[in-house]
Amino acid sequence: MSELERMIDAGTGRTPADIVLKGGRFYDLVTGDLVASDIAITGDRIVGTYGDYKGAVEIDITGRIVVPGFIDTHLHIESSLVTPHEFDRCVLPYGVTTVICDPHEIANVLGTEGLQFFLDSAAETIMDIRVQLSSCVPATHLETAGADLPIERLLPFRKHPKVIGLAEFMNFPGVIHKDPIAMAKLEAFQGGHIDGHAPLLSGYGLNGYISAGIRTEHEATSAEEAMEKIRKGMHILIREGSVSKDLKALTPLFTERLSPFIALCTDDRNPLDIAEQGHLDYLIRTAIADGADILAVYRAASISAARAFGLMDRGLVAPGRRADLVVIDSLENCKADMVFSGGRKVTEALFASRKPVAPVGTDSVRAPEITAADFAVPARQGESSVLGVIPGKIITEHRRHRLPSRGNQASVDLENDILKVSVIERHGKNGNRAVGFVQGFGLKKGAIASTVGHDSHNICVVGADDEDMAVAVRRLSEIRGGFVVVEGGKVTGEIALPVAGLMSLEPYESVRDTLHHLREAAYALGSTLQEPFLQLAFLPLPVIPHLKISDKGLVDVDKFELIDG
Amino acid sequence: MSELERMIDAGTGRTPADIVLKGGRFYDLVTGDLVASDIAITGDRIVGTYGDYKGAVEIDITGRIVVPGFIDTHLHIESSLVTPHEFDRCVLPYGVTTVICDPHEIANVLGTEGLQFFLDSAAETIMDIRVQLSSCVPATHLETAGADLPIERLLPFRKHPKVIGLAEFMNFPGVIHKDPIAMAKLEAFQGGHIDGHAPLLSGYGLNGYISAGIRTEHEATSAEEAMEKIRKGMHILIREGSVSKDLKALTPLFTERLSPFIALCTDDRNPLDIAEQGHLDYLIRTAIADGADILAVYRAASISAARAFGLMDRGLVAPGRRADLVVIDSLENCKADMVFSGGRKVTEALFASRKPVAPVGTDSVRAPEITAADFAVPARQGESSVLGVIPGKIITEHRRHRLPSRGNQASVDLENDILKVSVIERHGKNGNRAVGFVQGFGLKKGAIASTVGHDSHNICVVGADDEDMAVAVRRLSEIRGGFVVVEGGKVTGEIALPVAGLMSLEPYESVRDTLHHLREAAYALGSTLQEPFLQLAFLPLPVIPHLKISDKGLVDVDKFELIDG
Repeated sequence: MSELERMIDAGTGRTPADIVLKGGRFYDLVTGDLVASDIAITGDRIVGTYGDYKGAVEIDITGRIVVPGFIDTHLHIESSLVTPHEFDRCVLPYGVTTVICDPHEIANVLGTEGLQFFLDSAAETIMDIRVQLSSCVPATHLETAGADLPIERLLPFRKHPKVIGLAEFMNFPGVIHKDPIAMAKLEAFQGGHIDGHAPLLSGYGLNGYISAGIRTEHEATSAEEAMEKIRKGMHILIREGSVSKDLKALTPLFTERLSPFIALCTDDRNPLDIAEQGHLDYLIRTAIADGADILAVYRAASISAARAFGLMDRGLVAPGRRADLVVIDSLENCKADMVFSGGRKVTEALFASRKPVAPVGTDSVRAPEITAADFAVPARQGESSVLGVIPGKIITEHRRHRLPSRGNQASVDLENDILKVSVIERHGKNGNRAVGFVQGFGLKKGAIASTVGHDSHNICVVGADDEDMAVAVRRLSEIRGGFVVVEGGKVTGEIALPVAGLMSLEPYESVRDTLHHLREAAYALGSTLQEPFLQLAFLPLPVIPHLKISDKGLVDVDKFELIDG
Repeated sequence: MSELERMIDAGTGRTPADIVLKGGRFYDLVTGDLVASDIAITGDRIVGTYGDYKGAVEIDITGRIVVPGFIDTHLHIESSLVTPHEFDRCVLPYGVTTVICDPHEIANVLGTEGLQFFLDSAAETIMDIRVQLSSCVPATHLETAGADLPIERLLPFRKHPKVIGLAEFMNFPGVIHKDPIAMAKLEAFQGGHIDGHAPLLSGYGLNGYISAGIRTEHEATSAEEAMEKIRKGMHILIREGSVSKDLKALTPLFTERLSPFIALCTDDRNPLDIAEQGHLDYLIRTAIADGADILAVYRAASISAARAFGLMDRGLVAPGRRADLVVIDSLENCKADMVFSGGRKVTEALFASRKPVAPVGTDSVRAPEITAADFAVPARQGESSVLGVIPGKIITEHRRHRLPSRGNQASVDLENDILKVSVIERHGKNGNRAVGFVQGFGLKKGAIASTVGHDSHNICVVGADDEDMAVAVRRLSEIRGGFVVVEGGKVTGEIALPVAGLMSLEPYESVRDTLHHLREAAYALGSTLQEPFLQLAFLPLPVIPHLKISDKGLVDVDKFELIDG
């Protein structure tokens, strides 16, 4: 008997369903009612609601509420620092049954090999991982990426069953000004899904951008910005990540009227936040606590998200839908104590049953041999440009300072919290190095270094001491990528991220614990930033204002060009 | 310069748009606001709203309101009695810019040749005609159809760009009871769109039906029935046709809360109703007059319909969307005085520019040679079964009457309004004939006959006189199908429908006028039915209770078997 025949039999009640949830209520996102009913599951599908069912397995959920599985509509799994398999094990128990990811980070390091790794992983994970094809690799011409993904390399992936469309089109000036590389990608995906990314874009520029067929937007950071975009037909993906936090500002969008046109996403969410707060469940309870309409929040978390991305088989607790279900304590608190993904009850044993996928990019750190001398900066007359870090923001200020000098060398200025920052090309392409100055980390000694540096993921190091900076960079090569803290020539904290220099091979629990230690080691250097490695990772990102640094040099983002310090 | 580049240029306002609508307001279905703004169109797309634009053509629409083009989510174009080209010319000016049709009638006569004719026509029409693949050809084993469409014949059409999925799955008992032919079709379309058709199905049976992956339903005829189906995740297509009229009963569904989950359809709408009332515009103004929420009605007519069928490029007045626009006088009155389809202003000249498509099935009427003697019915003891017609309903009653006799022949009983009814196989398959009795047409003389007889479209004739019945049937062969009225051996009214015996080759205006005359000719025979040919056409439909007649004989629909009078 086919699965479909089994489902029909179970739905009609002729034969027992595989699993029946009994004694609870479910949240009907169509009517807004809390409905007392059995929920029958057979195969990967819900087959019965509004009725009494017998099941091969019957689970008592008295006092609980069942809601449709949550859909994260835009995220980079790499930001969790674990592999897709570990992400699955970490995040699915919070009720996130579908994620629509853009493997933008690994694609910038490994190109199609990175895309394929995600697709191979998606075939095995318990949660449904859908992949958007990274649209901007390399992100800009102002940095050296590990790979290049012109349209010809994306096309073979377009029809893959796990692929939805083209990922966040960050190069919005390229769209508006019809850059030929951008146009080739947009043309190829006309009629399909193209994700947007256009922070602060408005008016006629926004109209031109949307006219290119771009449908969704997760970069709106104020209600006013979001309202202009939603009025112009964009589906707004309300974001709350570890870096960009827009939930509070966008809470006014959670109304019943707007509910068909909004969704939720995390974009970048680090393992500490996941451990301490949760994932989309955190967004849901926070939005409700801030006064959002409850029906609108749950629609955004499931059915409205599903429809925006053409996932017509999910998003409701109803027959025929994929049995992605979250059993929670209350709508307001949204604590998941049982999760079903495609009809399977989520357990550690289920995760253990997955086939592993061989890691890729385990020799991706091919940096030149570095010594303290590589961080020397000739002293100069007058002021120098300094990256001004703002706690909790990825935007930087372009500051000017007169730097102290030792001999003919410009020096760090610990009194004014000015440290050296360097980006070193690490893909084995050209060995580029650039050195500059940064203010705001608070280190009084030592250095911190990372192979996670958006978007090209070259090595980025910040330090009070050239020797420690060199030790940190060399250690990154030894551990094949990761985060390192060095003090007095010794490594005092580290985490290895050998998968493309971005992801750990360890379980998420040990990554979480190691990150705690690592943070403590950075605090011991004097770090005044709560998340020093997160802020380090965004220093090289040349599409975010105002002053950044890449392997090619200092970037004045407002002019979108390299400058001479 | 590519079309996409032109659109971006126009959207940003750098270059003039192709067309700009100025001075009016548009109905923003996201926020519910009436927005005063230019609307800029370039190519087939809207490129600007919420702004001022220059256009190569600027059209003043002062005082008018622009709404997104209407989407008819389920209909049989054949019921308009004109070809898809003429349907386009007739219905698009009412603002219907997209129709999702099931060519079920022509498919039952011609099979894949009929599907291909619709797809070829859809490539040329100004409106966007999308095609669902007819799922039930033949409809039942109780009749002789002209064709057979098992799954193997549907599969080659599945990926056609105009094909959405599988059309209304009428054989709902076949789904619930896992009929192998039904299962093969359902299996093949899992993950794609499958339209439903399950009148009065509820409870566990409905759960089983929906579990098969069936997503939409247009057969709900009461609010209670519709509410059960919508709560179980079906998208409800609220129908108002010439035959089945559900709008009033379902008006309670037009609420803002339910608006993402409803749409509109006409199913079967004849040319007289279109001429007298309009098309979806009639549904819109009628629902609003009956107290429906206005935003919900317009969402149902466009964006919610588009999303239910995965037509993500349309349904809003917003940049990036297909420029399907209707300029109306007021939201309440909804009279279109200008329509844009894919950016083209709808005019007679535009219709004249379409490439014609050669008609098919012009020799589809292959009935045996018929004489009056073929309608002889032997007299019998006791009562005979009589089809009891109810004005305006396709359901019939199973009545019993003692018939008068002449010699050894049973005879019509004009005093009790009992006439003869006969169905004659006309596909050249077997020459089957069946004769029975029908009550409720009111004819006092003559006969009416038709090659439109759901679902197999054999010849159906009703008459007070055997000779006139024979004349009528023979005339149908001469004119290659159509409707005929005969009185005293003479044809007193007729319309030729030579395309598969279902559609005219004439312009819709002349079809409309001829139908007026035809109706008058039927009234002259004494017809007490307002639409005698419409009711005639449903006498052979063996899936509608209670007593029907096919070329194989009388059908007791409740027992779903042939009976012996």
